[in-house]
Amino acid sequence: MNILLTNDDGIMAPGINILAQELSKEHEVLVVAPDVERSATGHAITIRTPLWAKEVRVGNKDIGYAINGTPADCVKLGLLAISNVEIDLVISGINRGPNLGTDILYSGTVSGALEGAIMEKPSIAVSSADWNEPRYETAALFIAEFLRKFDIKNIPPFTALNVNVPSLLPEEIKGWKVTRQSKRRFRDYFERRKDPYGNNYYWMFGEVIEDDPGEDSDYAAVRAGYISITPIYAFMTNFDFMERLKEELKE
Amino acid sequence: MNILLTNDDGIMAPGINILAQELSKEHEVLVVAPDVERSATGHAITIRTPLWAKEVRVGNKDIGYAINGTPADCVKLGLLAISNVEIDLVISGINRGPNLGTDILYSGTVSGALEGAIMEKPSIAVSSADWNEPRYETAALFIAEFLRKFDIKNIPPFTALNVNVPSLLPEEIKGWKVTRQSKRRFRDYFERRKDPYGNNYYWMFGEVIEDDPGEDSDYAAVRAGYISITPIYAFMTNFDFMERLKEELKE
Repeated sequence: MNILLTNDDGIMAPGINILAQELSKEHEVLVVAPDVERSATGHAITIRTPLWAKEVRVGNKDIGYAINGTPADCVKLGLLAISNVEIDLVISGINRGPNLGTDILYSGTVSGALEGAIMEKPSIAVSSADWNEPRYETAALFIAEFLRKFDIKNIPPFTALNVNVPSLLPEEIKGWKVTRQSKRRFRDYFERRKDPYGNNYYWMFGEVIEDDPGEDSDYAAVRAGYISITPIYAFMTNFDFMERLKEELKE
Repeated sequence: MNILLTNDDGIMAPGINILAQELSKEHEVLVVAPDVERSATGHAITIRTPLWAKEVRVGNKDIGYAINGTPADCVKLGLLAISNVEIDLVISGINRGPNLGTDILYSGTVSGALEGAIMEKPSIAVSSADWNEPRYETAALFIAEFLRKFDIKNIPPFTALNVNVPSLLPEEIKGWKVTRQSKRRFRDYFERRKDPYGNNYYWMFGEVIEDDPGEDSDYAAVRAGYISITPIYAFMTNFDFMERLKEELKE
């Protein structure tokens, strides 16, 4: 397959390079990724300034193209302007840290895959679910195996797979589970400080809230040692409430 | 009510100021908005740098607080650090231009409302659906009227209302419709240019695709002269495909 790879940790991050190396054994891989880290950029795109695509080499090895933009920019530019072959699959990752629950709204990694989905390409976001000790090799091996077993053409339009791999050795992984996005989120706090000029400024930090019951949630799978595969799409209508609201707002 | 107002066009944009003025007749309004335009920032948050909150005055009039961050940052900071009263409602807007279909993934305006929803506050995003000739007064009058008629406590957790108001005079508006998010999206193109140093760079531009049939879509309502009210939530699981995938991936 021809695979377009992007991420939000930047083109020099280990996650994307380990994945590129693994997938290159069986596929043609084109890396188009942000020039610097763009974590928590959400589904931002660059509309007011142009984008540069800079070829990156390390020694005599071609790494890919570095873009002064977001993961969604990279997918658009990769598919529409850089690749000269038909891309079969877009993969975004391997992200450093989990993308579970409401993380996916903030995640640049996930937005790269959703951009691929909106552009009607099969798309996968992949994360190693530990910020401090990610195991990219485990996640890379899983993705390579998954692509051998699963026909990515079965992914419906506008839908991407959000894959979170526990940070374990391959032999410690219990298997995979198809899950739903949980309502995992953060309780945030701001610490107020004073700058040397007397102005207040604020640092944000937060703690995870995981109060979503049920074994079918994304984080329950990861916590139990399973790879979580959540099919997500670009649509957010709350249909249950939509019907109630129609009744309520009858003029 | 105590209302927290934000937007993505920046604190000096006309949309947010016209809305603040209208709502102040009946409510207490606190404006916490980005210091400069942050359109198409998606649901980005600022995690690597601190945030400054700068009081903004024009003449002897208090405008609110300008933040060096995104709409989601403004909502977090407004609710958790700036407001000293309990906020009843978060409103993001009035945006210059529509937020319909997949626009809502890229929209900073919508992400401000979704952030409010994740923080368990009733939340509304509001847009005047014309980039070139927005009619903010029409949208502001509608929101004020809507808040008189509709009990915002009925909005369920994690859900926000995405309101798009046609750019018409108030008397030309045909009414409102509760709608679903359509698959409206852009077909993008890149124009390649050369900078004075010989490097390629790319400008992105696009044209709207509106091929979603059905009268219940967000853009069909706006096109027919109705205000579109779409209840959206922070969840993107494709449940239909989830069930099929479970079957397919049985080990």
